[in-house]
Amino acid sequence: DFFNALDEVKPAFGVSEAELEKCLHGGIIHYSPFIDNILAEGRLFVEQVRKPDSTPLFSVLLHGPPASGKTALAAKIAIDSEYPFIKLVSPEDMVGFNEMAKVQYLSKVFMDAYKSPMSIIVMDNIERIVDWVPIGPRFSNSVLQTIMVLLSKQPPKGRRLLILATTNERSVLQQLDIFNSFNSDIPVPNVNSYEELAHVMEKSGAFSPQDIQRSLEEVRDITQSEQVGVGIKRILLGIETAKQDADMASRFSGVISRAVAERQYS
Amino acid sequence: DFFNALDEVKPAFGVSEAELEKCLHGGIIHYSPFIDNILAEGRLFVEQVRKPDSTPLFSVLLHGPPASGKTALAAKIAIDSEYPFIKLVSPEDMVGFNEMAKVQYLSKVFMDAYKSPMSIIVMDNIERIVDWVPIGPRFSNSVLQTIMVLLSKQPPKGRRLLILATTNERSVLQQLDIFNSFNSDIPVPNVNSYEELAHVMEKSGAFSPQDIQRSLEEVRDITQSEQVGVGIKRILLGIETAKQDADMASRFSGVISRAVAERQYS
Amino acid sequence: DFFNALDEVKPAFGVSEAELEKCLHGGIIHYSPFIDNILAEGRLFVEQVRKPDSTPLFSVLLHGPPASGKTALAAKIAIDSEYPFIKLVSPEDMVGFNEMAKVQYLSKVFMDAYKSPMSIIVMDNIERIVDWVPIGPRFSNSVLQTIMVLLSKQPPKGRRLLILATTNERSVLQQLDIFNSFNSDIPVPNVNSYEELAHVMEKSGAFSPQDIQRSLEEVRDITQSEQVGVGIKRILLGIETAKQDADMASRFSGVISRAVAERQYS
Amino acid sequence: DFFNALDEVKPAFGVSEAELEKCLHGGIIHYSPFIDNILAEGRLFVEQVRKPDSTPLFSVLLHGPPASGKTALAAKIAIDSEYPFIKLVSPEDMVGFNEMAKVQYLSKVFMDAYKSPMSIIVMDNIERIVDWVPIGPRFSNSVLQTIMVLLSKQPPKGRRLLILATTNERSVLQQLDIFNSFNSDIPVPNVNSYEELAHVMEKSGAFSPQDIQRSLEEVRDITQSEQVGVGIKRILLGIETAKQDADMASRFSGVISRAVAERQYS
Amino acid sequence: DFFNALDEVKPAFGVSEAELEKCLHGGIIHYSPFIDNILAEGRLFVEQVRKPDSTPLFSVLLHGPPASGKTALAAKIAIDSEYPFIKLVSPEDMVGFNEMAKVQYLSKVFMDAYKSPMSIIVMDNIERIVDWVPIGPRFSNSVLQTIMVLLSKQPPKGRRLLILATTNERSVLQQLDIFNSFNSDIPVPNVNSYEELAHVMEKSGAFSPQDIQRSLEEVRDITQSEQVGVGIKRILLGIETAKQDADMASRFSGVISRAVAERQYS
Amino acid sequence: DFFNALDEVKPAFGVSEAELEKCLHGGIIHYSPFIDNILAEGRLFVEQVRKPDSTPLFSVLLHGPPASGKTALAAKIAIDSEYPFIKLVSPEDMVGFNEMAKVQYLSKVFMDAYKSPMSIIVMDNIERIVDWVPIGPRFSNSVLQTIMVLLSKQPPKGRRLLILATTNERSVLQQLDIFNSFNSDIPVPNVNSYEELAHVMEKSGAFSPQDIQRSLEEVRDITQSEQVGVGIKRILLGIETAKQDADMASRFSGVISRAVAERQYS
Ligand SMILES: Nc1ncnc2c1ncn2[C@@H]1O[C@H](COP(=O)(O)OP(=O)(O)OP(=O)(O)O)[C@@H](O)[C@H]1O
Ligand SMILES: Nc1ncnc2c1ncn2[C@@H]1O[C@H](COP(=O)(O)OP(=O)(O)OP(=O)(O)O)[C@@H](O)[C@H]1O
Ligand SMILES: Nc1ncnc2c1ncn2[C@@H]1O[C@H](COP(=O)(O)OP(=O)(O)OP(=O)(O)O)[C@@H](O)[C@H]1O
Ligand SMILES: Nc1ncnc2c1ncn2[C@@H]1O[C@H](COP(=O)(O)OP(=O)(O)OP(=O)(O)O)[C@@H](O)[C@H]1O
Ligand SMILES: Nc1ncnc2c1ncn2[C@@H]1O[C@H](COP(=O)(O)OP(=O)(O)OP(=O)(O)O)[C@@H](O)[C@H]1O
Ligand SMILES: Nc1ncnc2c1ncn2[C@@H]1O[C@H](COP(=O)(O)OP(=O)(O)OP(=O)(O)O)[C@@H](O)[C@H]1O
Ligand SMILES: [Mg+2]
Ligand SMILES: [Mg+2]
Ligand SMILES: [Mg+2]
Ligand SMILES: [Mg+2]
Ligand SMILES: [Mg+2]
Ligand SMILES: [Mg+2]
Repeated sequence: DFFNALDEVKPAFGVSEAELEKCLHGGIIHYSPFIDNILAEGRLFVEQVRKPDSTPLFSVLLHGPPASGKTALAAKIAIDSEYPFIKLVSPEDMVGFNEMAKVQYLSKVFMDAYKSPMSIIVMDNIERIVDWVPIGPRFSNSVLQTIMVLLSKQPPKGRRLLILATTNERSVLQQLDIFNSFNSDIPVPNVNSYEELAHVMEKSGAFSPQDIQRSLEEVRDITQSEQVGVGIKRILLGIETAKQDADMASRFSGVISRAVAERQYS
Repeated sequence: DFFNALDEVKPAFGVSEAELEKCLHGGIIHYSPFIDNILAEGRLFVEQVRKPDSTPLFSVLLHGPPASGKTALAAKIAIDSEYPFIKLVSPEDMVGFNEMAKVQYLSKVFMDAYKSPMSIIVMDNIERIVDWVPIGPRFSNSVLQTIMVLLSKQPPKGRRLLILATTNERSVLQQLDIFNSFNSDIPVPNVNSYEELAHVMEKSGAFSPQDIQRSLEEVRDITQSEQVGVGIKRILLGIETAKQDADMASRFSGVISRAVAERQYS
Repeated sequence: DFFNALDEVKPAFGVSEAELEKCLHGGIIHYSPFIDNILAEGRLFVEQVRKPDSTPLFSVLLHGPPASGKTALAAKIAIDSEYPFIKLVSPEDMVGFNEMAKVQYLSKVFMDAYKSPMSIIVMDNIERIVDWVPIGPRFSNSVLQTIMVLLSKQPPKGRRLLILATTNERSVLQQLDIFNSFNSDIPVPNVNSYEELAHVMEKSGAFSPQDIQRSLEEVRDITQSEQVGVGIKRILLGIETAKQDADMASRFSGVISRAVAERQYS
Repeated sequence: DFFNALDEVKPAFGVSEAELEKCLHGGIIHYSPFIDNILAEGRLFVEQVRKPDSTPLFSVLLHGPPASGKTALAAKIAIDSEYPFIKLVSPEDMVGFNEMAKVQYLSKVFMDAYKSPMSIIVMDNIERIVDWVPIGPRFSNSVLQTIMVLLSKQPPKGRRLLILATTNERSVLQQLDIFNSFNSDIPVPNVNSYEELAHVMEKSGAFSPQDIQRSLEEVRDITQSEQVGVGIKRILLGIETAKQDADMASRFSGVISRAVAERQYS
Repeated sequence: DFFNALDEVKPAFGVSEAELEKCLHGGIIHYSPFIDNILAEGRLFVEQVRKPDSTPLFSVLLHGPPASGKTALAAKIAIDSEYPFIKLVSPEDMVGFNEMAKVQYLSKVFMDAYKSPMSIIVMDNIERIVDWVPIGPRFSNSVLQTIMVLLSKQPPKGRRLLILATTNERSVLQQLDIFNSFNSDIPVPNVNSYEELAHVMEKSGAFSPQDIQRSLEEVRDITQSEQVGVGIKRILLGIETAKQDADMASRFSGVISRAVAERQYS
Repeated sequence: DFFNALDEVKPAFGVSEAELEKCLHGGIIHYSPFIDNILAEGRLFVEQVRKPDSTPLFSVLLHGPPASGKTALAAKIAIDSEYPFIKLVSPEDMVGFNEMAKVQYLSKVFMDAYKSPMSIIVMDNIERIVDWVPIGPRFSNSVLQTIMVLLSKQPPKGRRLLILATTNERSVLQQLDIFNSFNSDIPVPNVNSYEELAHVMEKSGAFSPQDIQRSLEEVRDITQSEQVGVGIKRILLGIETAKQDADMASRFSGVISRAVAERQYS
């Protein structure tokens, strides 16, 4: 009955807000106008689904390079929506699940969402949820098919659902023919310019202005590249490693240069 | 016994009519004479199967690009038939089913249909029912074989069955050798000309004539294409997104241009 | 015991005769001398197996394009034999069977046949029984191997068995190395000439002589082909569709022309 | 205990002699000196294994084209050996067995043989026992590995075993790396010359000398080949078919010519 | 409860220290400055994870040729950390585990680690844990996916985890797309120069200075190579073999030369 | 407890000695100095593992062509070691085992060995144990991985283990990446020269000196080859076959020539 249903929904919601906030432990640094655009685009879809006369199902894919901040941005959009039901679906919650268990877990999450008048499901790291590996290639087709069908399954009358998914394998999703199952998609960029990188270093409060200057010069020297192209998550982690080193600025430029180089060869 | 059998049939029927009408929530907009031809062709097959002296089994495949309106058209033909038994078979009803469960579900639906003197089964999205994915390629051969056999299995004496199937992967169905198992096929087109697109915009009641004009011009400008080639479902959804934007006409032309571009590169 | 055994055999027989006659609901139209040759060849093998001193096992494969009448002709030969045990084995009787169930069903049918002094087994549509699909290619090897072994397994002393199999995938059966397991094979042709097509139209009683003439001319015009090459089953079904149309002759020529064209491109 | 063991062995033996004799229902026609050589070679290996001081395990592979008489010749060698235990292992005894059941059945047969001081196991049609199919290719690796190991497994002290296997896929057995597991091999030829064919026709007692002459001339005419190259089993079966025809000689030459032609194209 | 939890953690810890020390039974010979660098790098990451305000999860991959000392170095870093929970996860602990058992075992180890405020997990020989074999290639995708997810799964609030993994198949890990899941990586070299080799021989205490000299000269002579390129583990084992030989120096140079040659051809 | 453990070990040992001696029923004929070298190399490794201060695990692979005597030589080395625990692991002991049973059996053997202070495990015919077949190729990866891990798993403190494995597929083991898991390897040759062959014939006591001379001349004549290249096992078996023939020398040269020819074409 209805009260029972409410019971089921509430804890699910409570738990997930905590989980979503964990994704944001590095905050959102507005190092580029793209970040604001992404959040605005997210807000627009949140409003569309909220409208009682619109199609009650909408799905958006956030895609970008590894560590670029996709999960944090999806979490931010979800939390800011203030919808009554928000749920993070992440591969980390399915460790040790076999294909059938994954399929059932996914169905269960959607069934729960259908009980709330308005819901957001954040489906994180789709290529990991479907056990993608490029050798073979192999993946769980039954999980993939389940997701594809859930992406087009209309919620029951009077229920509305927004799906925010993330991936760093857009081309894989295209090959798997699931990319077109999304109603819209939002690209998430790396930290690309030295100005953006400086902005992040500043916000971290770990470097003196001179250290920032010296560090960036070293990166430029080592990489001989005008493009940084490193994800915000790696940069924040590199700052932490650098803090352990006596020569913090050099350690940081070393870590970042290596990341830049890896990008160039991959 | 007979009364029991009737019991089983009735609810099945009731439920499905609701389901089929859900497929039509955007109505049928007669934006092109093709739409009328498709519905007329459907009516002809409905009449053929109704004849007591004709072959009691006939199958038709509606095929066309994604979002072109295949499901809605099949639902419309089925509802207008006024046959006593109509059943929608959709991948969404089989979420979490394994191969065997799918095979049994399909058999059950046909067994139910055989109990009614005249039946229509709408088998939606065959490539999804058989878990098709282009990488591999992989699909459920046991589900595929079951469908192939059910497409040629004569109903019991005195029972008549029309099967309406949909797909947006005609060439896949040809490769799988199931295409020829259908007795006839009907192609479903995209919204292709700017006139057709204007017609749809008008019917939506969301745009002023000036907005329509401006929007179409922008699409033409951005895409440099004389062909629209976007499915009716995407267009109707794009209108909904546009409604959230302050500059509705530009947002609409943006969404449509992107859809046109994707068509050109896929 | 013996009486029990008889009990098992009788109903099996009764049921199958009805099933076989269902395959003949369009009758046998003698539209070409080939049809008579096929039936004569069948009679010869029926007589050979009947002889008490001959090898007690013989197998024949009827192969030809889809819808060419293979099943009907095999059924006709079987019914005319007046053997005490006749059984149709068709993929339609095995919907939802897994590999093991199919293997057991096939074994059971042969065990039943071995109980009768003389038997015919009609094994319809072998490629469907083995779940053949050209992508992969995939098929049930355990079902295939079972059939191959049953085709060479001598019946018990004093029992005689004729196997009539059908396929529209002769080359597939050759690749699967089962083609050579048959002792003989009979090709079944399409309706190939306009004279043959006219003969079928006439026999259907649906067309006036003028309609026939006009229809054939239209087909010639549209297809620009001197060869018809369409299966008798499709032609009979096309006549039924045509009957629903106000302009029956044109609808018929349309349906047939499309069938001719498909043949040319496949 | 010992008496129990004897019990198990005896019926196994009784049954198999009947089975082996069934393989010889067409007798052995000495249509060529090769036939005598094959039987002599078989006798030699029978004697070698009989010697108490020789290696207690020996395996021979009879290989040749389909229908060339391999099974009959292996049966003849086994029956003439007068060993106390002879067992025919044939795919026909394993219809409906899964891989594990086959492996167990094979092990059981060898266990039974190890109980007798001297044994012959006739393993008929190895490629069928391992479920070989050229598409894929596919086969049962667990059955194959079991056979390979059983071919080299020494019998218990004081027990001696001769294995006679047959195949018409020598090259397959080479690819599967099992060919070298045999200690020796004997090729079995087709009926190759017209003289050999005449000899077989004569022995059948079905033809007058004139019929033989006419029939052979017709085959020569039709095939334009100086080589017959047809298996003895097909020839004997062709004689039976011919007997049903009014014009026996022509029907026979027709059947044989077709067999010759098939050989040339395969 | 807490005391129970402590109970679970303690024995796990005790056992693992013994296991880790077993990996170090050949000690750490400082034959090159690289060895010191590797240990220093390890210490830095140990300190980073120890910091309460840093990201609570960090993973490092030690990669290098077979026998180069990867496991010993990872063990050394772990033991020197003096973290309260250290656990070695090695393929040798999972002999006979099926995929599911491996996945559960791995999850269990991480669950145990999450109970301690600070933990190190040494995951030895990843390619063996995932059952990698180059033919196919084949590997356990479910184990691989589990590891990939566990490498990014945040520990519960207040718990900190450092993962040290080893592999001698870096390129395989790159192909499997798991290489980038590590936050950092450390290459481990072979014993490469003759000076390094002499250092190891000396430390073993098995050779006189003359023997060392003669042995190295022989290796140079035989291999004609200025590069040794042999793993420390193979060298230590070669010394043991040499000790059994009357002419210890020659036996040693023989063993080493063969190892050098194998490197050159692989 | 300890006495129980002893109980388990003893019978295992008793049984295996008998099994190992069975592998030596043809004795060891010292037809070439290579044979003595192989046995000496084996003795060296036996002594190395016996030393209490050496690494307690060592593995050696004997590889060579089929029938070259690998199993007999490994058995000889094991028996001569006089270690308290010796166990032969052979595919023949695992007939009918599935993958899991094989893995468990192998683990059990190693567990048993770990109970004895010093042990030798003879792992015969590795490619057969892993169910290798070149078509596919297919093999049991779980068995392979188990062996790879057992080859590097350190025995418990105070226990010492020597592993002697055999294969005639060295290159396969290299492709499977297991070849490098062995600490050392010993090649086993064929009987290669006519002198070696004469030596074997002489030792058999079956031929007069003239027969030997004549036989060898015939082989030279037929094969036109200065190289024999046939395994000792085939030669000894050929002598047995020859004994059944009236003309023993010619039969022997026939058998050997055929073996030589097969070598040349394989
Ligand atoms: N502008 C920003 N956008 C996104 N994340 C940011 C931003 N600024 C700071 N962050 C922080 O950076 C981290 C981004 O990590 P996140 O896990 O979202 O990346 P990701 O792209 O999902 O990585 P992965 O490819 O591993 O899934 C978070 O800790 C987040 O709080
Ligand atoms: N002429 C039309 N034909 C079809 N659908 C129309 C038409 N006019 C309006 N619609 C509406 O457009 C939508 C078509 O969506 P539908 O699901 O049928 O498309 P589809 O081709 O089946 O999509 P998919 O490829 O995702 O299966 C429906 O909401 C329907 O009511
Ligand atoms: N000469 C004829 N030969 C065969 N069938 C005929 C002939 N004349 C009329 N028919 C009718 O044509 C139909 C032939 O259909 P049938 O199912 O036998 O074809 P098929 O080749 O087996 O088709 P499929 O390829 O689908 O298995 C039957 O209804 C049969 O009664
Ligand atoms: N010289 C002969 N050699 C073998 N069989 C002969 C000979 N003469 C007559 N026959 C008869 O010919 C038939 C040979 O059939 P058999 O089953 O042995 O052939 P096969 O090569 O095993 O066939 P398949 O390839 O189907 O296994 C038997 O009926 C046998 O009695
Ligand atoms: N500098 C060193 N670095 C590493 N190991 C050393 C060093 N000096 C001596 N050793 C000894 O060498 C051996 C190295 O073996 P270890 O198992 O660590 O190598 P590995 O690279 O992990 O081998 P594998 O590729 O088989 O996993 C250990 O016994 C270790 O005690
Ligand atoms: N010098 C020798 N070396 C090895 N075996 C010998 C030698 N002299 C005689 N023999 C005998 O030869 C036979 C060798 O057979 P064995 O099974 O060991 O060969 P193998 O190489 O293991 O064969 P396979 O490739 O089939 O495993 C044994 O019977 C053995 O007693
Ligand atoms: Mg993420
Ligand atoms: Mg649809
Ligand atoms: Mg048919
Ligand atoms: Mg045979
Ligand atoms: Mg290691
Ligand atoms: Mg051996």
